[in-house]
Amino acid sequence: MHKRIVVAGGDGFCGWPAALYLSAQGHDVTIIDNLSRRRIDQRLGIQSLTPIASPDQRLSAWYEITGRRLHFEQVDLAEDFDGLRAALAEIRPDTLVHFGEQRAAPYSMKDAARKLYTVNNNIRATHNLLVALTDLALDTHLVHLGSMGVYGYSDAGIEIPEGYLNLSVQDEGSDRREIEILYPASPGSVYHMSKVMDQQMFQFYAKNDRLRITDLHQGIVWGTQTEETRLDERLINRFDYDGDYGTVLNRFLMQAASGLPLTVHGTGGQTRAFIHLQDTVFCIGLAVENPPTAGSRVKIINQMTETHRLRDLAALVASVTGARIALVDNPRKEAAENDLRVSNRTLLDLGLRPITLAEGVLGETVDIAQKYIHRALPEMVAALSTWTVEQRPGVVTADALARGRQILT
Amino acid sequence: MHKRIVVAGGDGFCGWPAALYLSAQGHDVTIIDNLSRRRIDQRLGIQSLTPIASPDQRLSAWYEITGRRLHFEQVDLAEDFDGLRAALAEIRPDTLVHFGEQRAAPYSMKDAARKLYTVNNNIRATHNLLVALTDLALDTHLVHLGSMGVYGYSDAGIEIPEGYLNLSVQDEGSDRREIEILYPASPGSVYHMSKVMDQQMFQFYAKNDRLRITDLHQGIVWGTQTEETRLDERLINRFDYDGDYGTVLNRFLMQAASGLPLTVHGTGGQTRAFIHLQDTVFCIGLAVENPPTAGSRVKIINQMTETHRLRDLAALVASVTGARIALVDNPRKEAAENDLRVSNRTLLDLGLRPITLAEGVLGETVDIAQKYIHRALPEMVAALSTWTVEQRPGVVTADALARGRQILT
Repeated sequence: MHKRIVVAGGDGFCGWPAALYLSAQGHDVTIIDNLSRRRIDQRLGIQSLTPIASPDQRLSAWYEITGRRLHFEQVDLAEDFDGLRAALAEIRPDTLVHFGEQRAAPYSMKDAARKLYTVNNNIRATHNLLVALTDLALDTHLVHLGSMGVYGYSDAGIEIPEGYLNLSVQDEGSDRREIEILYPASPGSVYHMSKVMDQQMFQFYAKNDRLRITDLHQGIVWGTQTEETRLDERLINRFDYDGDYGTVLNRFLMQAASGLPLTVHGTGGQTRAFIHLQDTVFCIGLAVENPPTAGSRVKIINQMTETHRLRDLAALVASVTGARIALVDNPRKEAAENDLRVSNRTLLDLGLRPITLAEGVLGETVDIAQKYIHRALPEMVAALSTWTVEQRPGVVTADALARGRQILT
Repeated sequence: MHKRIVVAGGDGFCGWPAALYLSAQGHDVTIIDNLSRRRIDQRLGIQSLTPIASPDQRLSAWYEITGRRLHFEQVDLAEDFDGLRAALAEIRPDTLVHFGEQRAAPYSMKDAARKLYTVNNNIRATHNLLVALTDLALDTHLVHLGSMGVYGYSDAGIEIPEGYLNLSVQDEGSDRREIEILYPASPGSVYHMSKVMDQQMFQFYAKNDRLRITDLHQGIVWGTQTEETRLDERLINRFDYDGDYGTVLNRFLMQAASGLPLTVHGTGGQTRAFIHLQDTVFCIGLAVENPPTAGSRVKIINQMTETHRLRDLAALVASVTGARIALVDNPRKEAAENDLRVSNRTLLDLGLRPITLAEGVLGETVDIAQKYIHRALPEMVAALSTWTVEQRPGVVTADALARGRQILT
């Protein structure tokens, strides 16, 4: 059945390909976005490596190629509750996919102003959505992009479940009881902290107002294009490679294409969860088609397909591209080494067949990095945001290069 | 040792007597407040039953009577980060006691605008404080007024610990491990949800920036005066009795003094934690004198002294005043009946000797309600904020009065 879907933050890295995918599936899609991601790039003096078109150009191209209409409304979720409420009152969406948040951990740690912006923007955006849906008494299914980072990486040693943990509790004054709790949060940045706070709001509104909510705890996304974005260059997706917004694989690929060493933070022993962008949009589709019923708990799904240590990723990229590796100081406050086991049963059961790094789909992104290298500002790749004032940014020195050699041997 | 102390929200119901208490102890106290509580009263068309003086009159009276100087800065914690930062840079407080939040659950559920205000105000106020302290690299001890309501009332059946729960976890792929988690939150209103979100921010900033934080999970406060506020009528504390800001005991006392029935929500089987205002300020003093060390976890203390079922409280007030009781519809979404056991070991070990309801200290507040009854608007006592659109406000009907009779029999 075709749905009316709002994609909040539908101009961004995951939001744009998700909007196209849902439109291609036959849904009636409206993007709501304040274009903040483009403005942040301007302010940081950076741009997407790929030449992304304006929203109007994107929508025209999509119509020209597919005959499908995408709608766009420029509304600031965080700052304009009335505008958001009016848009939702008119559209009355069956589903609202919420990407509309500041999504970079390093950016959120850059300075006081960015810490404040991240919390103010993300909490207000999410809460405005929740209050608007409640106030309008809409039966909209809210699908939120959360993060694997809410769980943290140094805790119980058990496989991370999909959101909830079953416990058995008892004390001297009580009988033994089985309870279910939200898996304890341990965010590693102000950005991740804002996602933990989102979680708490979802728990409350699902319970008090019977809102139907799915929270997708997503791993680090790799890849740039999807079946839809590669149909035409005007539909191309953004490719971020700077120290704030570039995810680890993009930054490695850009460094390789620029003849720079791949910068690995600390020992590279950090294990993280990953997912390909094509799988991301497929999973969003699965989430949209499988809403929880009203009155049930928040449905939490781990949206990731594989885990890797960062040094192994660097070695993989180095072997494909011939790049060198530099072990730089870790600007983040995190465990140097961690294990990570994650349950992703829900999406596998719904039919996800993961695209893995080992399959070499890396190739497309390598090609993109090379094709648009003339647009690059290689000096922007270094991660300059530090987690505390005592820490040093992740930059390359001769010593860092020497230490990096050990990764490949 | 005397400290430089900032009391944020020091014009409010708990903040004002706490500021006086800390000043009386010899500390150098600056109140920071935006006077929002007074403005909200104006907007709601209500006023404190007691005639509270202006901040200037209060400070002059305090100086006149005790020779001690209290300072006052009108700064909006939530809206004026720069002003807050400048004030903290100048004062460089040893301790910052943070009462500066919207603190009424019914007000937070009143309508969309108040839900948004509560979250925006409380989250920004707390986050601005945390970022200002971090950015200034101050070693200030932050003492925050949290709420027992973050724990919720219908969970594990065990004694609620002071913030943390120890668990033993294991799965097929791991060894058994002991971990400590934040006690799972279960907030019952948007207001309580904002306190849960505060908690998450405290966890992050204590870990990442080694901020020293004490979070006091306070029960429902009863009583109106403290040793300091009763020194002069110009120092008198506020007495709220309206359906939004009046706590349960004050509302019972006002109803009794007005010849109205005491309105008990639902069955009155809700068990809640209580503390007398005099004990509150004493506990704040204990928290100030016993900071955690830098780098340690957030120190969470349950600031309550006894638990009561609401119908037992109503029966107590009825027996003292001769008032009747009405069982009205519960406007809140909560368990009709619950048990509640709470650990308050920390404060007892530090020397707290609780003032209990059974000691009859109720008398002073009964006297205050009677003395100022000419200032009352009895029609404001009913709780009109409902938790969902399906619910009905807590108002008296003939049937409600008849049902109330059973409580006393």
